[in-house]
Amino acid sequence: MSPELERLFQHLRFPSISTDSRHIDDVRQNAEWLMGQFESMGLTAHLYETPGNPVVVARNRLVEGRKTVLVYGHYDVQPVDPLELWESPPFEPEIREGKIWGRGGADNKGQHFVHMLGAEKTIREEGDLPVNVIFLIEGEEEIGSPNLVPFLCEHREELACDIIAVSDTGMVAPGVPTLGYGLRGITCLEVMLRGPKGDLHSGVYGGCVANPATAAARMVASLHHDDGLIAVEGFYDEVVPLQDWEREMWASVPGATDEDFLKTIGSPSPHGEPGYSMAERIWARPTVEVNGMGGGYQGEGSKTVIPAQAMFKLSCRLVPGQDPASIQQRVEDHLRKHTPPGVTLEIKRGHSGKAYHTDPHSPFGKAAQIALEKSFGRPPVLIREGGSIPIIQDMKEILGADSLMLGLSHPDCQIHAPNENFPVENFERGIEMSRILLRELAKI
Amino acid sequence: MSPELERLFQHLRFPSISTDSRHIDDVRQNAEWLMGQFESMGLTAHLYETPGNPVVVARNRLVEGRKTVLVYGHYDVQPVDPLELWESPPFEPEIREGKIWGRGGADNKGQHFVHMLGAEKTIREEGDLPVNVIFLIEGEEEIGSPNLVPFLCEHREELACDIIAVSDTGMVAPGVPTLGYGLRGITCLEVMLRGPKGDLHSGVYGGCVANPATAAARMVASLHHDDGLIAVEGFYDEVVPLQDWEREMWASVPGATDEDFLKTIGSPSPHGEPGYSMAERIWARPTVEVNGMGGGYQGEGSKTVIPAQAMFKLSCRLVPGQDPASIQQRVEDHLRKHTPPGVTLEIKRGHSGKAYHTDPHSPFGKAAQIALEKSFGRPPVLIREGGSIPIIQDMKEILGADSLMLGLSHPDCQIHAPNENFPVENFERGIEMSRILLRELAKI
Repeated sequence: MSPELERLFQHLRFPSISTDSRHIDDVRQNAEWLMGQFESMGLTAHLYETPGNPVVVARNRLVEGRKTVLVYGHYDVQPVDPLELWESPPFEPEIREGKIWGRGGADNKGQHFVHMLGAEKTIREEGDLPVNVIFLIEGEEEIGSPNLVPFLCEHREELACDIIAVSDTGMVAPGVPTLGYGLRGITCLEVMLRGPKGDLHSGVYGGCVANPATAAARMVASLHHDDGLIAVEGFYDEVVPLQDWEREMWASVPGATDEDFLKTIGSPSPHGEPGYSMAERIWARPTVEVNGMGGGYQGEGSKTVIPAQAMFKLSCRLVPGQDPASIQQRVEDHLRKHTPPGVTLEIKRGHSGKAYHTDPHSPFGKAAQIALEKSFGRPPVLIREGGSIPIIQDMKEILGADSLMLGLSHPDCQIHAPNENFPVENFERGIEMSRILLRELAKI
Repeated sequence: MSPELERLFQHLRFPSISTDSRHIDDVRQNAEWLMGQFESMGLTAHLYETPGNPVVVARNRLVEGRKTVLVYGHYDVQPVDPLELWESPPFEPEIREGKIWGRGGADNKGQHFVHMLGAEKTIREEGDLPVNVIFLIEGEEEIGSPNLVPFLCEHREELACDIIAVSDTGMVAPGVPTLGYGLRGITCLEVMLRGPKGDLHSGVYGGCVANPATAAARMVASLHHDDGLIAVEGFYDEVVPLQDWEREMWASVPGATDEDFLKTIGSPSPHGEPGYSMAERIWARPTVEVNGMGGGYQGEGSKTVIPAQAMFKLSCRLVPGQDPASIQQRVEDHLRKHTPPGVTLEIKRGHSGKAYHTDPHSPFGKAAQIALEKSFGRPPVLIREGGSIPIIQDMKEILGADSLMLGLSHPDCQIHAPNENFPVENFERGIEMSRILLRELAKI
């Protein structure tokens, strides 16, 4: 195993799960480890405290007149449950079948680490980088980056840059370099429904009071029409429609036919908003999805209770034109209106982020296209992404810079799921891509 | 303390928890203690082995031409956790505030022991019982009586009887004698829905395939109309309607108004089949209830996944006229018909039991009413019960005899919970009730 891979493995061994307070020390130790890495590369590194997890910022010498490139990444990871579905332990990375297996391999440790290694190699070989580089690696991306906006505002001048490079997205298919120019936004809601003061025996009391699990199901069911269209009033009102060149390009993107998606996902058939391909639904249409739902006895066998409470968690993916706060309000209004009688409703508003959109044909976009083409050996496809990286929109607003999304993960990298993995080949080509990118950006 | 209470305390001191294999010896010792009690009363007692815990059967001399009464009870008890909530140790019975505190006081040791003491007193005072009596006290009621049906079949002739007396239910309120003449049946189903082969990132793939949690919610929601009426085709077809006298009587049953039930349950309002009071819904109308439902991430914070699968568990409470197998089939048909596209459905059929119903105005029912009225000083209320006691229907089918449900526990007796208790007054009146019952049954 190469020394670079060994160092990535060190990075992956930290169980830096930001949503679980039991891992708060692991998260901090991961940040401190990153500090050591940056310092050994010869960069100046700072660990900044926030009300949550620390932000690590590292940079080379600032030379006036050079372009400044900010590389964004995050060292926190998603939870690992259900643990029993992992084929190897999530925080004991290993290589099998040309892939690095472990939580964070693709999302996002493997992907930001290639930029660190690319810079390190260029410094070692050329004595300096061709541009000013700022690495900004945060520890709260998986919980919606609650402290990053204040941090960006406070450090606006220190973080001033011309362009931002982010590898936290995906390639449409193995071997097909992909430049992302759009992201969906997000807004989340959590709903708790309470009925009886304790679980009831479903014989002794069944039939006479509202069952919170039934109420939860009815509310979730009310969110969509039978054909998949979202039933929340006004949900689609401000959506910016797809452009013709996008629909044309996307129709020929390798690995992005309905058939390709179904094969990757393993679902029996497509389902969603009528009138769109799966790629269009994912990249350019908004959603309401249940991320979790539960109530009552879910173990083996039967337990004849009427649960005292039930819950569900929703996230909406948003597209250009949609305002997260107003969509959140519309969904909340819808839920209040559709709460069945006999239960009490508690809605917790979760995090939100606007959709992001930029021009892939700008000079920065062209530099990214060249870097991708040279490192992967074919011209990149231009797509949007279905996921949300709210911080990209935030950086646009606060730092005034656009982001180049140079995704390196594959559709089967299982991010956020058991058996997350990252191809060794993309790790190696990514290091090369990062080096060419800085060189091309220096030419603008 | 009376010698009778002291003997009940001996009975209560055995920690005869049938679900916990560590108590297997305690269970057996309790059965052997019962044998001693029956023998000292002058009855012939047998301890029958089963693949599980022993069944104790005791009887007086069989006299041709006399009615034969079987008294059913169980000497096993529920677990005691959470132990820290008990105000006195569960297996060290004591008397406070006119109540006997300890596990098994109400469910069921205290309730069957009154029948034993009643018979003993009659034998002592009158030399014999006015009827043939068979006591059948089992040790597996709290784990679903898995060995009792084969036992009944094997000993059908020995257990032949005209009527069965069971004190294992409750009084509607303190001081209100209660004769139960019906129980709901049950049928259970478990549903698993599968979509993508693994959990998906709700950004990367959201909107293009069916979400199994949404599908589960839509299926659960399809089971009822907005007003609470069950939407399964034919569900109510064979339901025997409530009789006028039942509705009239139940409207005046103490402790059984909607207000009373809501206070006990702690729900904000009633909900269920339109046109019925809560008591009517519980005692005489069928239900479809979700006992458990789940899919996706239910922990703290958010995890933006589309779950690969979702499940729900249903139980239907059935009333006279409904056949469990055909209701199970109709619910299954409904679920298949209402499965949204894009998910695969797996249905597991669970256990079933018929509803039970007898005529409280039969000669046997009238004897029970007289016994309750004379011992408690007011006419009993006649009710059905919402729960299911499958063994009562089994005895009906195997032995051909109806059961008189002479419940002696109060709504606050905390059966199955910490601080189980049984009023001393009901213990004493119960002994009297049992003596009168045998005398009245002898007159038929």
